[in-house]
Amino acid sequence: MQLFYNPDITPNAYCTLDAEESRHAVRVLRMREGDELNVTDGRGALYRCNIIQADSGKCIVESVSKLSTLNSQLSTIHLAVAPTKNPSRMEWLVEKAVEIGVGEITLLDCDHSERTFLKTDRLEKLAVSAMKQSLHTVLPKINPAVKLRDWLNSTQPFSHSATQPLKFIAHCEADQPRVPLASALLPGRDVVVLIGPEGDFSGDEIALALECGFQPVSLGSARLRTETAALYAVTAFNLINDRI
Amino acid sequence: MQLFYNPDITPNAYCTLDAEESRHAVRVLRMREGDELNVTDGRGALYRCNIIQADSGKCIVESVSKLSTLNSQLSTIHLAVAPTKNPSRMEWLVEKAVEIGVGEITLLDCDHSERTFLKTDRLEKLAVSAMKQSLHTVLPKINPAVKLRDWLNSTQPFSHSATQPLKFIAHCEADQPRVPLASALLPGRDVVVLIGPEGDFSGDEIALALECGFQPVSLGSARLRTETAALYAVTAFNLINDRI
Repeated sequence: MQLFYNPDITPNAYCTLDAEESRHAVRVLRMREGDELNVTDGRGALYRCNIIQADSGKCIVESVSKLSTLNSQLSTIHLAVAPTKNPSRMEWLVEKAVEIGVGEITLLDCDHSERTFLKTDRLEKLAVSAMKQSLHTVLPKINPAVKLRDWLNSTQPFSHSATQPLKFIAHCEADQPRVPLASALLPGRDVVVLIGPEGDFSGDEIALALECGFQPVSLGSARLRTETAALYAVTAFNLINDRI
Repeated sequence: MQLFYNPDITPNAYCTLDAEESRHAVRVLRMREGDELNVTDGRGALYRCNIIQADSGKCIVESVSKLSTLNSQLSTIHLAVAPTKNPSRMEWLVEKAVEIGVGEITLLDCDHSERTFLKTDRLEKLAVSAMKQSLHTVLPKINPAVKLRDWLNSTQPFSHSATQPLKFIAHCEADQPRVPLASALLPGRDVVVLIGPEGDFSGDEIALALECGFQPVSLGSARLRTETAALYAVTAFNLINDRI
């Protein structure tokens, strides 16, 4: 099955696919007027559509039936991660995290970050592509880099959530008490997890996170790269919640 | 900590690091005669060594004490996976699987493979690098591509194992009975898992694997890419065994 994406799609209405989606449907897949395709709004709804006008620049489709809606009560994981020095490692992470299942990604600018900034537009494109590839119907929000201190002081992550999310910081200070992430996760609960840069979080950042109610967790004895640690957290969350 | 690798290292003896390891120690890290470093043999043993001759082409070290030996009773996972069309995806998989923890990797040539061959020397280099990065002391064996049929007919994977390993095939035929991999894994048991190419296993291959005692498993409702499915299996194995 090929999945298409249009954030503006609504029930029983026309909508125009963007240039890339139109090209893919009409030029690559050679779809024609009357052909059926599936379109998600990236917020959990999936529609069966018919092609009304097979234009490879702006393909017009009509949504004829709603196939499914994601259960909005499902718990999600918010991954807050320091960009790696090598941007391709972050691109890889976004693709894999979306395939496995992630609710939101925030880039963190930390005291020991070697890269404090990363353009989100390329990451967003990769997220759309991974969502379609994996047949997910929710496009995770990707937030541009923010100072970890500011984020901890100002944000209430998952403010939409009825219950407070589980909040974890995965730091590498072996002499401080930490519990294994896998045993700290609970089924059905939203999660926010902080993953630090190559040089780990600073002592000040760890102290501030603990003050803000984050539990310190470890990811085992292996020394995982930033992007591996982040994907591990996302995979463990989905396993605990029986999603994969 | 910097970890070095030399398969020939033995207790209380001299050994010469290869050109790349020597260059890394002497040229990059500027280590000198008398400096201490840790060297693994890639088979689970870790030695504290002193540098005897800091030659950037062939650095000679003496092993002075054995720091640890991996418990050889620990269960392992043997990942048998069809190479992806894009070789960089396999390179990524090898790096990540070694970081998370994998015992052996076999490349499979399947009926629907778009790539039936991949040189293992580059993958082996990546595996050494990932082992050192993650501070593991076991270098997984990487076996060159073999026809899945021949492998199933001839091999007894994990013949060294006291108990028969759990054997899984992760195929995508939704109309055939499959159990979720996460619930089929058992702590303490060796595992062999087959991951197919982009076009999935053929019906004949699935039938043969079932005849050979492989249990069909699913990896959830998301459509995972080959390399994502493979890393998911490795992560689930390590989670079940409390390794991470």
